[in-house]
Amino acid sequence: MKKAVVLLSGGMDSVTLLHYVKQRLDVDELYALSFVYGQKHACELDMARWQADVAGVLEHKVIDISFFGELIHGSSALTDADLEVPDLDDVDEEHREQPITYVPHRNLVMLSLTASYAEALGATDVFYGAQAQDEYGYWDCTSGFVKKLNEVLNLNRVEPVTVHAPFTEKSKTDIVRLGLELDVDYEHTWSCYRGGDKPCGTCPSCVEREKAFCNAGIK
Amino acid sequence: MKKAVVLLSGGMDSVTLLHYVKQRLDVDELYALSFVYGQKHACELDMARWQADVAGVLEHKVIDISFFGELIHGSSALTDADLEVPDLDDVDEEHREQPITYVPHRNLVMLSLTASYAEALGATDVFYGAQAQDEYGYWDCTSGFVKKLNEVLNLNRVEPVTVHAPFTEKSKTDIVRLGLELDVDYEHTWSCYRGGDKPCGTCPSCVEREKAFCNAGIK
Repeated sequence: MKKAVVLLSGGMDSVTLLHYVKQRLDVDELYALSFVYGQKHACELDMARWQADVAGVLEHKVIDISFFGELIHGSSALTDADLEVPDLDDVDEEHREQPITYVPHRNLVMLSLTASYAEALGATDVFYGAQAQDEYGYWDCTSGFVKKLNEVLNLNRVEPVTVHAPFTEKSKTDIVRLGLELDVDYEHTWSCYRGGDKPCGTCPSCVEREKAFCNAGIK
Repeated sequence: MKKAVVLLSGGMDSVTLLHYVKQRLDVDELYALSFVYGQKHACELDMARWQADVAGVLEHKVIDISFFGELIHGSSALTDADLEVPDLDDVDEEHREQPITYVPHRNLVMLSLTASYAEALGATDVFYGAQAQDEYGYWDCTSGFVKKLNEVLNLNRVEPVTVHAPFTEKSKTDIVRLGLELDVDYEHTWSCYRGGDKPCGTCPSCVEREKAFCNAGIK
């Protein structure tokens, strides 16, 4: 593979993906793209920068789309100050399939922008860290979503970009195990949706992270 | 239809679409979304504002994504100062299918953002002014693209957004004819790719526009 672009949030999944692409795939030029989209946990971007540097990416772009929070005002607890991020235990059955932490079409927006960047670079491969969620789910993190999105991108008449999401069938525990093999420094990743100084430990993302490390035998 | 969002550039196609949706479809609340994306012809946005006002949209958002021009630097004559917009006659056969005026994944980016806005509003219908091009073409203006994109959006587990592109089988002449029936004021639309004070008259977009008016019997 000549050139590849990783969509990098700074969370444990996309960071593991970055190092996986770097170490396990034969890529000549590695690029990374991150977004400020009005998320409360913008501290993850510092982690993204740190990891991109460690992985030696040729260019890491951080794009400010913080207008996005305003565009989708009132619809997601990740971007709206008035909406509280629930503890995982407080996410009721009815909303498991699309919880309040879902951000409308965010992943499609980011992947579209990443495809734009890739096409302009002459890169045909984009990497996306979607993984198999155990506890709750988002339609835009599934392998079905990636497949259908690739059918759209494949209509491009010159050099279609393909989105690869090698972790869609992996649990977070599998990802941690892989990351440990790759010597990923998980101290420099951020998962907490609430974005205080320290991870809250009770939001869905914190709980999943802790479980994954626990299952992988790490405290 | 309770709520609808029109992706409005300020060109003749999307402006006609705006008035078509307003006058011919039974929509309670009409919204419009426009983008500053680093295009040379940003004057089209003034036209978009004027038309949105005439159509009485409930909210017209103009979103600044001018970082986009930088993200795709070097890849499109619509956004890059160093790349010249060719006259239609100078677009060679080989590049007709993806000319230098193609903007990588722009339409996918804009439609994704429009879908985000729609979902947050509780609107399930987005309108897109893609039309059947006679002289040259873009993969992201085809009915096949819209169909495949809707297959992606339809994976949304709660209330999927659908993109409607009622003009994909219409020529620009058909659109002008429809617009005249709808009393569209075409003085307040902008087509020229070059974006000077006056339309250049020779870029692909100007030539197509003039032909369409000519065919519809308008000077």
